[in-house]
Amino acid sequence: MASTTHAATAGATLQDQQLQLVTGHSIVNGQISTQGEDPLPFQAFASPSGVPIALSFHAASASEIEHAAHAAWRAFHLLAQRTRDDRALLLDRIAANIDALGDDLVAWACAETGLTAARIRAERDRTTFTLKMFAQLVREGTWVRAAIDIGEPTRKPIPRPDIRRMLRPLGPVAVFGAGNFPLAYSAAGGDTASALASGCPVIVKGHPGHPGTGELVAHAITKSVAESGLDPGTFSYLHAGGPREMEIGAALIRHPCIRAVGFTGSLEGGTALAKIASERPDPIPVFAEMGSTNPVFLLKNALQSQGDSIAEKLAASITSSNGQMCTCPGLIFALRDDATEQTIRHLATLLENAPPQPMLNRRTMEVLARRVGEVTTTEGVELRAGRAVVVNARNPTIASGPALFRTTLASFRAKRTLHKECFGPVAIFVLCETEQELLDAVALTQGSLTGSIFAGAMDATLSAKVQAILEHRVGRLIFNGVPTGVEVCTAMTHGGPFPSTNQPHTTAVGALAIERWCRPVTYQNAPDQNLPDELKSENPLAIERVVNGVETRAAV
Amino acid sequence: MASTTHAATAGATLQDQQLQLVTGHSIVNGQISTQGEDPLPFQAFASPSGVPIALSFHAASASEIEHAAHAAWRAFHLLAQRTRDDRALLLDRIAANIDALGDDLVAWACAETGLTAARIRAERDRTTFTLKMFAQLVREGTWVRAAIDIGEPTRKPIPRPDIRRMLRPLGPVAVFGAGNFPLAYSAAGGDTASALASGCPVIVKGHPGHPGTGELVAHAITKSVAESGLDPGTFSYLHAGGPREMEIGAALIRHPCIRAVGFTGSLEGGTALAKIASERPDPIPVFAEMGSTNPVFLLKNALQSQGDSIAEKLAASITSSNGQMCTCPGLIFALRDDATEQTIRHLATLLENAPPQPMLNRRTMEVLARRVGEVTTTEGVELRAGRAVVVNARNPTIASGPALFRTTLASFRAKRTLHKECFGPVAIFVLCETEQELLDAVALTQGSLTGSIFAGAMDATLSAKVQAILEHRVGRLIFNGVPTGVEVCTAMTHGGPFPSTNQPHTTAVGALAIERWCRPVTYQNAPDQNLPDELKSENPLAIERVVNGVETRAAV
Repeated sequence: MASTTHAATAGATLQDQQLQLVTGHSIVNGQISTQGEDPLPFQAFASPSGVPIALSFHAASASEIEHAAHAAWRAFHLLAQRTRDDRALLLDRIAANIDALGDDLVAWACAETGLTAARIRAERDRTTFTLKMFAQLVREGTWVRAAIDIGEPTRKPIPRPDIRRMLRPLGPVAVFGAGNFPLAYSAAGGDTASALASGCPVIVKGHPGHPGTGELVAHAITKSVAESGLDPGTFSYLHAGGPREMEIGAALIRHPCIRAVGFTGSLEGGTALAKIASERPDPIPVFAEMGSTNPVFLLKNALQSQGDSIAEKLAASITSSNGQMCTCPGLIFALRDDATEQTIRHLATLLENAPPQPMLNRRTMEVLARRVGEVTTTEGVELRAGRAVVVNARNPTIASGPALFRTTLASFRAKRTLHKECFGPVAIFVLCETEQELLDAVALTQGSLTGSIFAGAMDATLSAKVQAILEHRVGRLIFNGVPTGVEVCTAMTHGGPFPSTNQPHTTAVGALAIERWCRPVTYQNAPDQNLPDELKSENPLAIERVVNGVETRAAV
Repeated sequence: MASTTHAATAGATLQDQQLQLVTGHSIVNGQISTQGEDPLPFQAFASPSGVPIALSFHAASASEIEHAAHAAWRAFHLLAQRTRDDRALLLDRIAANIDALGDDLVAWACAETGLTAARIRAERDRTTFTLKMFAQLVREGTWVRAAIDIGEPTRKPIPRPDIRRMLRPLGPVAVFGAGNFPLAYSAAGGDTASALASGCPVIVKGHPGHPGTGELVAHAITKSVAESGLDPGTFSYLHAGGPREMEIGAALIRHPCIRAVGFTGSLEGGTALAKIASERPDPIPVFAEMGSTNPVFLLKNALQSQGDSIAEKLAASITSSNGQMCTCPGLIFALRDDATEQTIRHLATLLENAPPQPMLNRRTMEVLARRVGEVTTTEGVELRAGRAVVVNARNPTIASGPALFRTTLASFRAKRTLHKECFGPVAIFVLCETEQELLDAVALTQGSLTGSIFAGAMDATLSAKVQAILEHRVGRLIFNGVPTGVEVCTAMTHGGPFPSTNQPHTTAVGALAIERWCRPVTYQNAPDQNLPDELKSENPLAIERVVNGVETRAAV
């Protein structure tokens, strides 16, 4: 079913007028830029056909990067003079202008990524919802964490100064588009939305897998910036692909005007970018979301009472977007018994019968093939469903069915390759002999975005023990559910210990994501007119503040 | 005056019974440890006499580090089972047991650091105040930033899960004692207090400049842990000095059981520790407070109307604790005119007449001598008060008077050495020719803990322009005041852009310091009994939470 949907929107079927919406050039300081002297334009490829899309993309030149960075620096100071309502309006406009791209955007994204139109529409709606959520957060204003400790000029032995604090934006942010989220974590996704919301201009380094989609969204943002009367340097989009891709990313991170970086991608990529940032004369933060195995623990009574249903949920989760989700459940742990064996059989059958689906691009396909090869040839591992992925240089088709492996905790413990993410529709079922082995398994798992526990009524004691260890290793702990499907809301944490992210105190989804682009600034004995509105005594914005340690919306 | 006070409490005068309070051994897992096989014990030296204190200290051995780390890991999990009241009580007990050390603690700290008894008493009171502040914060409980988005099982197309989030502790924390705050940022200071408050056990790497003071405080903490019935691994104190000092710090940071690091010290030290932490298989955060120049901008009308008073405030701030404060004002900028010249003259006279005061230790003295030498020999720089610091190998006395330099913005711009901190009672007065030059000066300053603006009524326009640039470079912006004196309160930010810290989104002073040791954890569809009390539907702890985006103390 999935593959039929794809064929209908695949690259070859992009219509001429859809192709003409995209220029192949970067957007710098509000303008389509043709400063790029790029002798090696790059291509995007349709998935799953592997056919090149009939348009060339020009990787950003050094002068374009320089121009975008300086424009962003200027825009940062101008944006600081605008109100929170101006920023909220910008976010709402971006949402509206993305919606206005309609089916052209869906066609481009489907063509470039092989994801289904239903998935792309859902991702678009998630993206515009995120933009509108941050608009609302900014309009309300309490997010700045304003705190006031009122001075006491008569305190002995020394007067107590008046101390007021709030979050202030860091400066221009570089966002690295994610391969697996062409809308929600690329030109206009969670990173861009939260950075703009905080008051930071954004420069996006486009992902080479979906440059057309990225450029289309970038046009919508650029238009919104202009409609809002904001400085054009508030947003730039740099095409990046071909041999110069890495160089563009590095130049952006090294630029003195860039003050923070958002990244979603591989462990290798995130680690490399963080290293570049740490070697600047003035190191800057890189917020990198990287790989995650999202371990799932199936306890005895849960398997006895709802094994089939668990297998069905897991199969749907593993194959969702063909496993190319950062929250795909890659490791499943259970005690070996009849109920477990039955669940494995059912899960294997479901996955065996799942049709091949497109992978995002040839590189993702190659990495998957290599990882599946590594796991398949690991001693003590049995392939229970699916088959080795074959990448054939003469056949450019990009698609893969799911795979399920089965192993023991002894093998898992011995083989580090089994601890690493397989990005794609692949899960490894690890069987434990005793409850202690299951607890050992929890302790062996790496840092992950999520951890799931399926527990029945009789599993309460073991469930608590698993939880006590697992919660130190994950950002989100899920009970009786699969990890895919990340709700965009105030209380969400989409983050976790290394290697799932390099900044486990932050989240890439939900309201707190805005704080990544800020730092607290304290004003001591400031005259009222020197204070930001959020900290003025009258509380003109009527936000909630902590005054002398107590939450209030009252004036001071 | 200051030096008289010191002589009275200097090292040579430590009484026998005071010497006997200190063992020279590390405290590991609640016990005085003698596992150390240390062929090279190290000494502490009295300041300003430079005389060795009659006691040998044993740098922690590899097995002591290992023991402390494993004990902390065990204690971390046990502490998670205790209530917030248990942690609050521990903090209050530590404060009481530090107070109970009485004049013995004051004598040791004065002897080892050369700081005055008045300063040490004030620092002790600040330390116990900080402990009690965190006790109160933890007892109240709202600091965990609890948020709940209530599920909607009937939402279409998919049910909305129940999502709940709060801050959870990271695990055992290594605290590196600071040379210049033997109480407030060493064994029991802001880092230790905030880490214990959050639920993280602490291992302190003692500073070799004041090991006796550190050990005394460590005894008070160890006693408090025992009195509270907490696991002894909750706190350990490792002596570190002599040739193995760096090795001890590195081993601690590399240990898998250590999950975060707090450091106050030099740029070189902080950078080295952060690098070690980033090279772990699982990098951990290092919160390093490093050097800071704390630029002060004196505007025209302020100098005209209160020049003498400003000079007096600056002189007191520069010489406070002999300039060995992270917030010492090291750079002063003003427009060249008669009022400025008069202020410089007055400041120079005040500093010229200030008596030499002790430096913390010989190393601090040597670094100061080197830096003063560098500045003195820089082209375009004039010494206006004080003299070159002489360190004489045959005379161990450790004391220095203040120094004031004068230069132009042109020289400041050209010479990078003038941009760096001189740790000690030293300030550089930089004269600007035009308002534009003054604004250029703001833009030239490095990241700093603080920035100060002295502005009169007629300076409003320029003051706003200075502020707009300065606030991107500092953690705290002070109006008409000097930077020394960091109030411990909710709204304080003691942090700032690199190089003043490596984590400008955090603070080392004030309530938010607790968040450094935590990360958000989200619980999805968790049964009520699996939730921490802070997130249970009934809100049994009656904390303020954000429920469906709105602050409330109500149950859900």
